[in-house]
Amino acid sequence: MGRKKNLLGPSFPFGSPEELNSYLPYLLTRVSHIWNTEQAHVLAQAGISKAEMRVLSCLSAYGELTVGDISTLSVIEQSSASRTVDQLVMAGMVERHIGQDDQRKRTVVLTRKGSSRLSMVAPFVNQQFTAFADGIDPKDLKTTADVLHSILVRFDER
Amino acid sequence: MGRKKNLLGPSFPFGSPEELNSYLPYLLTRVSHIWNTEQAHVLAQAGISKAEMRVLSCLSAYGELTVGDISTLSVIEQSSASRTVDQLVMAGMVERHIGQDDQRKRTVVLTRKGSSRLSMVAPFVNQQFTAFADGIDPKDLKTTADVLHSILVRFDER
Repeated sequence: MGRKKNLLGPSFPFGSPEELNSYLPYLLTRVSHIWNTEQAHVLAQAGISKAEMRVLSCLSAYGELTVGDISTLSVIEQSSASRTVDQLVMAGMVERHIGQDDQRKRTVVLTRKGSSRLSMVAPFVNQQFTAFADGIDPKDLKTTADVLHSILVRFDER
Repeated sequence: MGRKKNLLGPSFPFGSPEELNSYLPYLLTRVSHIWNTEQAHVLAQAGISKAEMRVLSCLSAYGELTVGDISTLSVIEQSSASRTVDQLVMAGMVERHIGQDDQRKRTVVLTRKGSSRLSMVAPFVNQQFTAFADGIDPKDLKTTADVLHSILVRFDER
């Protein structure tokens, strides 16, 4: 039938639910949709928008970022990322800086208020993640994160 | 500082790029976005829309599905899934059936024409996946798929 199992799993198109359920792109799309749908409820409870949450989170991790970097890291389209940064500046949660290494570069950093905001949201998000990862062997969870990170790095290097 | 490493990885909010880059929900969101962005180009080349592709693919794997199941499996909102099924019926690529097990249930199945359509697209999609998974240890790729599938199963059982 021309369908052959190779080392990377079954070939598209799939002839059984099992084949589809072992296909990484399908699983990525389904599972990230589940996470983000659940997070929408969690963030509504915590009183913060998804865009605000993502922008503050990547600034917390990276310290200082351009709006372009924020857009990439937070997977928010550039114009929305820019608008979210404007709103966060107004709310006193981030500040615009002139780049430390390159004076022509405009960057954004988290303020103490933005940092407190993230700390307030943290229990909600951490509880969601604990439930999400419930029952997964920590070693397998690490392998999963390493595999996805390797794809990300390869993509960013292109 | 109240930040502690636990077995499941660092706690939100993150204090370094490394912490963010080991956080599964972040990686899922980034990597699925990359896959789907790249796939948009691949499908444009192959002359098929994302919605058509997803609906035909899950029918290929499952054989017979309700529009509700198609919506869930293809991660397309119910009304769009329904509209896509209508278009595919008109194009002769799927057919509406009365459910095999439950006569009250309306289901959708792939036609021979829909199946040929998927076979035409297959080389594009398989090439994309091979490049995407390039360099990943097949054992680690399988662990990743198993971990994500276990999250999916747990979610579907709720």
